[in-house]
Amino acid sequence: MTPTKIVDLIVKDLRFPTSLEQDGSDAMHKAPDFSCPYVELKTDTDLTGCGITFTIGKGNDIVCYAVKAMSKMVIGKNLDAIFGDFAGFWREITSEDQMRWIGPEKGVVHLATAAIVNALWDLWAKIEGKPLWKLLVDMEPEKLVSTIDFRYISDVLTKKEAIEILQLKKSEKTSREKDLISRGYPAYTTSCGWLGYSDEKITKLVEKATAQGFTRFKMKVGADLEDDARRAKHFRELIGYDKVWMVDANQKWDVQDAIDWMCQLSEFKPLWIEEPTSPDDILGHAKIAEALNPIGIGVATGEQCQNRIMFKQFLQAKGLQYCQIDACRLGGVNEILAVILMAAKFGVPICPHAGGVGMCELVQHLSIFDYICVSGSLEGRMIEYLDHLHEHFIHPVVMKDGNYTVPQSPGYSIDMKDESIADYEYPTGRAWKKLFEAGSFIQH
Amino acid sequence: MTPTKIVDLIVKDLRFPTSLEQDGSDAMHKAPDFSCPYVELKTDTDLTGCGITFTIGKGNDIVCYAVKAMSKMVIGKNLDAIFGDFAGFWREITSEDQMRWIGPEKGVVHLATAAIVNALWDLWAKIEGKPLWKLLVDMEPEKLVSTIDFRYISDVLTKKEAIEILQLKKSEKTSREKDLISRGYPAYTTSCGWLGYSDEKITKLVEKATAQGFTRFKMKVGADLEDDARRAKHFRELIGYDKVWMVDANQKWDVQDAIDWMCQLSEFKPLWIEEPTSPDDILGHAKIAEALNPIGIGVATGEQCQNRIMFKQFLQAKGLQYCQIDACRLGGVNEILAVILMAAKFGVPICPHAGGVGMCELVQHLSIFDYICVSGSLEGRMIEYLDHLHEHFIHPVVMKDGNYTVPQSPGYSIDMKDESIADYEYPTGRAWKKLFEAGSFIQH
Repeated sequence: MTPTKIVDLIVKDLRFPTSLEQDGSDAMHKAPDFSCPYVELKTDTDLTGCGITFTIGKGNDIVCYAVKAMSKMVIGKNLDAIFGDFAGFWREITSEDQMRWIGPEKGVVHLATAAIVNALWDLWAKIEGKPLWKLLVDMEPEKLVSTIDFRYISDVLTKKEAIEILQLKKSEKTSREKDLISRGYPAYTTSCGWLGYSDEKITKLVEKATAQGFTRFKMKVGADLEDDARRAKHFRELIGYDKVWMVDANQKWDVQDAIDWMCQLSEFKPLWIEEPTSPDDILGHAKIAEALNPIGIGVATGEQCQNRIMFKQFLQAKGLQYCQIDACRLGGVNEILAVILMAAKFGVPICPHAGGVGMCELVQHLSIFDYICVSGSLEGRMIEYLDHLHEHFIHPVVMKDGNYTVPQSPGYSIDMKDESIADYEYPTGRAWKKLFEAGSFIQH
Repeated sequence: MTPTKIVDLIVKDLRFPTSLEQDGSDAMHKAPDFSCPYVELKTDTDLTGCGITFTIGKGNDIVCYAVKAMSKMVIGKNLDAIFGDFAGFWREITSEDQMRWIGPEKGVVHLATAAIVNALWDLWAKIEGKPLWKLLVDMEPEKLVSTIDFRYISDVLTKKEAIEILQLKKSEKTSREKDLISRGYPAYTTSCGWLGYSDEKITKLVEKATAQGFTRFKMKVGADLEDDARRAKHFRELIGYDKVWMVDANQKWDVQDAIDWMCQLSEFKPLWIEEPTSPDDILGHAKIAEALNPIGIGVATGEQCQNRIMFKQFLQAKGLQYCQIDACRLGGVNEILAVILMAAKFGVPICPHAGGVGMCELVQHLSIFDYICVSGSLEGRMIEYLDHLHEHFIHPVVMKDGNYTVPQSPGYSIDMKDESIADYEYPTGRAWKKLFEAGSFIQH
């Protein structure tokens, strides 16, 4: 039986105590606890749509609270009405008359939107019995584009242009799909280079990643220039100069600091500097890019780029050379499609932000779609990979020789195991109770 | 006795049923209920700091929830520690390691920041026994600037430059203060021109405002071009062409639509078009300004400009000719000072957004400070005025001949009457209970 409507929305505050190992530590976020509001959309059948957004601990409950407030706009809705005019529904929930004031389309309410919209796409893919990427790949361009709200981006991308971009790459879709299934999508790993890791830990992790087939690595920078240079040297000694190596400052610098600091690190040949400054500073990024591109360093950003309107301007201003879409920051697949298509128009490669919890599971679908239907190329493209927390998912990513293999289970790969939910619901889950009792964690 | 620390933070969800009269209706917000999270900072004496942020109804509870989450960073704090290094404290609460992920510095958490920081400035002014504007005016430039976090704006304004701007206008402060006390600060009124008002209502309100001394008026546009032109004609017939008249689209248009629409309305000689498109679209605003400035129309924006980093770019890109700072959208006085000083550097006049509930009470202090210490000029400058909801404040704004008179009570003028709080706390207040019982309002 096919579900016809949403009958309930349940959201759970899940957190993982990653700060205990300094996993995820960087120049701005010393001790993150990877977390997610986990949304389940109940239907009038057994089928459930699952979705998340991502946070790094404190404030995860604020997003859960916002999801609950927004759930009134979803519960009781007919699925035909949603999927038949998905752009319309998307605008309805992102531009609700009173609620939009506390965004609009940014921050807490947009993160909440992502969790809900991700769950809807998961449900849609499950109804069609396809992995999300395949649902997208099989859709006619007109139908696919009908899910996008073009408000505020029509000066750069019209509906007609979007359809034309998709038409252009239509003929060789089947061969690219086959190609990708056989070789997988290129990845890079961030797991070796967190700021809080010792040299010994880095050495061990790089050796392990290399043995697993990784040839692309990212390292965190921005706390101390001398220390960055030392670690950069160590990293390059481990991997050599034939491998791809990037650095990430997580918004640590002002504009001029970013330029100065990266000139100092340029001898280590980073492919890109990621998040050199505020994610809101489009013109600042453009100035940094203008200074660093001539010495071979690109600018990458996107994980905190709040919406398609900001991405539009980053592209217009040449503020990024690598477009790091985020499955949980943008308002779900609808808005991500808009950004992928704008990036294609500007010839900028998509390199999704992933990691945290569940984001690798999500973004693989987006890059696979991008390759098959939009870019038609893997050049300069790769998906971030982190080897944390995959064990909690029913269909976790499967890596092979440093590549993402193409997922085959229906949906958006984000269903979590019941046991993991019971363990990590905050603050009452079994794992958290143990941590509090042991005194190794203080409840926020 | 002078208070030494914050011992508690109480936040209340206050809402006013303004949608019943279509007060505040515009092209994007058909039926707002002006609302505010109302923060009271309790100290170890009887003195209480009061602060608000502003919303238009639904979602006010989400911001209250965020304020409560952030209150842990405030309760127990020593006031010397806060006011002694206010920039440091400001960064602490806006860049909290984990929490910043769900902003940063935007949306729900930044609105919550505004409510808390506004309450701190209210408390500081009360401790000094001065209205807020006077606290600012009497501060040495170095001290004033020490409250600003220059992160992400140093490429456009350094601490040194900020101090120099203040030094420049120091010598004639006293005479400007006297001058303003005698004549008041120019205002314009928005109360006559809401989108949902009939022609008859507009006529009556314009007559009333004119009798009160107003010579500057704003009208809402953007729903229907023909209707806009008709109402514009009506409005100009009422006030003539010697009065100042502005229009406000509240983000209704895409970039090209804004240009086309305003070319059609240009015969009615609006001084500015306010919020022509998304508040996030800096480059879009710049394109609109480039097209409309030659035909005598400026671009105004700011009420949903999320932070100083966005304002910085609006100024850099010439995306605005009138800088509409918002006391509740920016993270309190500290960040507003940064924007006022950047605008001064670019020679752009400050015309604060006000209205809603309590925003007139707040922003008057900011413009008074701007005139006395920064701009030294009233040319092209005015404060928005709406005649709603002032009756709920202990020290409401006092208008005289269409000008704001200079407030004299200690603090930031935002203390509300106990009775109003008891009436309008949502959803349990007496006024709300009555509305629900009468069936004239459905609880969200």
